[in-house]
Amino acid sequence: KREQPRDHVTFSNRGMTLEEDINATNAYYLNCGMAVIHKKPVPVQIVRVDYPARSAAVIKEAYFRQASTTDYNGVYKGKYIDFEAKETKIASSFPLKNFHDHQINHMKQVESHGGIAFVIIRFSQTDELYFLPFQALYTFWCRMMNGGRKSITKDELTACSIFLPLGLSPRIPYLDAVESMYF
Amino acid sequence: KREQPRDHVTFSNRGMTLEEDINATNAYYLNCGMAVIHKKPVPVQIVRVDYPARSAAVIKEAYFRQASTTDYNGVYKGKYIDFEAKETKIASSFPLKNFHDHQINHMKQVESHGGIAFVIIRFSQTDELYFLPFQALYTFWCRMMNGGRKSITKDELTACSIFLPLGLSPRIPYLDAVESMYF
Ligand SMILES: [Mg+2]
Ligand SMILES: [Mg+2]
Repeated sequence: KREQPRDHVTFSNRGMTLEEDINATNAYYLNCGMAVIHKKPVPVQIVRVDYPARSAAVIKEAYFRQASTTDYNGVYKGKYIDFEAKETKIASSFPLKNFHDHQINHMKQVESHGGIAFVIIRFSQTDELYFLPFQALYTFWCRMMNGGRKSITKDELTACSIFLPLGLSPRIPYLDAVESMYF
Repeated sequence: KREQPRDHVTFSNRGMTLEEDINATNAYYLNCGMAVIHKKPVPVQIVRVDYPARSAAVIKEAYFRQASTTDYNGVYKGKYIDFEAKETKIASSFPLKNFHDHQINHMKQVESHGGIAFVIIRFSQTDELYFLPFQALYTFWCRMMNGGRKSITKDELTACSIFLPLGLSPRIPYLDAVESMYF
């Protein structure tokens, strides 16, 4: 008998709650006709597939690949929206090692083409969420690249981001931040 | 010894050449700084993962899921771009069964939010490619839903689409069609 399929998030101990909250938020925005924003599937490199008679193809060997872009994108008021969600257990700063080069480059390209790129950061100890525009993130990224600190202090973050109050519908009202910052 | 990983397209007999050509086109557009458009990963439902000591996690059981959106999206001149690529072996018409409800609904939502949605259609017998705006596709889709024919005739298609001449760089100049139709 076949095991009940579970979603991939089951296998990641990082970002699960945040991802679920963002997915619920995106579903809310979609249903309200406010925006069309989806999470991209987890990139997987498929090596072996079985095709049993009379049933669905079964992937028997595959590997997780590193994403070359961010996790979420879509459209809001005609504009291209692109963002990543990150969580940290550290209370006093946000470590930049949460990003890899590909993601920073991708967001930089998005902005250079007139898209809107940002990050939603969650401090899991306090369940505080911040909306950090890519431009601000990039400043801290460049500081690190130039030999500076490898994290954003909490004070720095609060100074250049928008606090996102947790709600019910939507759970994470990030389009309010988009609206106030870009429109 | 581990088998050499192959890309998922190896396991699909449909749309392979077209997908490769579009990926090459997107890479060209990205490198030229013209647009940031990527293919979304194939959605997979992961059921079982092994974590061997000292090596990467191995997905041991997974299933292909139906995509809820289209295959490609991104940003061009600040506008959200969203499209699907489809291939047919039929010479005289394009069967609408190539789409499922989810994809049509998704493209409809994209357009209602000011995004640009379209389809690239390849007739594999003649290697002819057409750029079909979603609005035109949707007319034919509604005709089918109202009991009409389940395909777009070749004549209808040529009348409401833009022919895409195959090239080298880029292989499929679909942004020329976007430019002429939406800008
Ligand atoms: Mg991620
Ligand atoms: Mg497809």
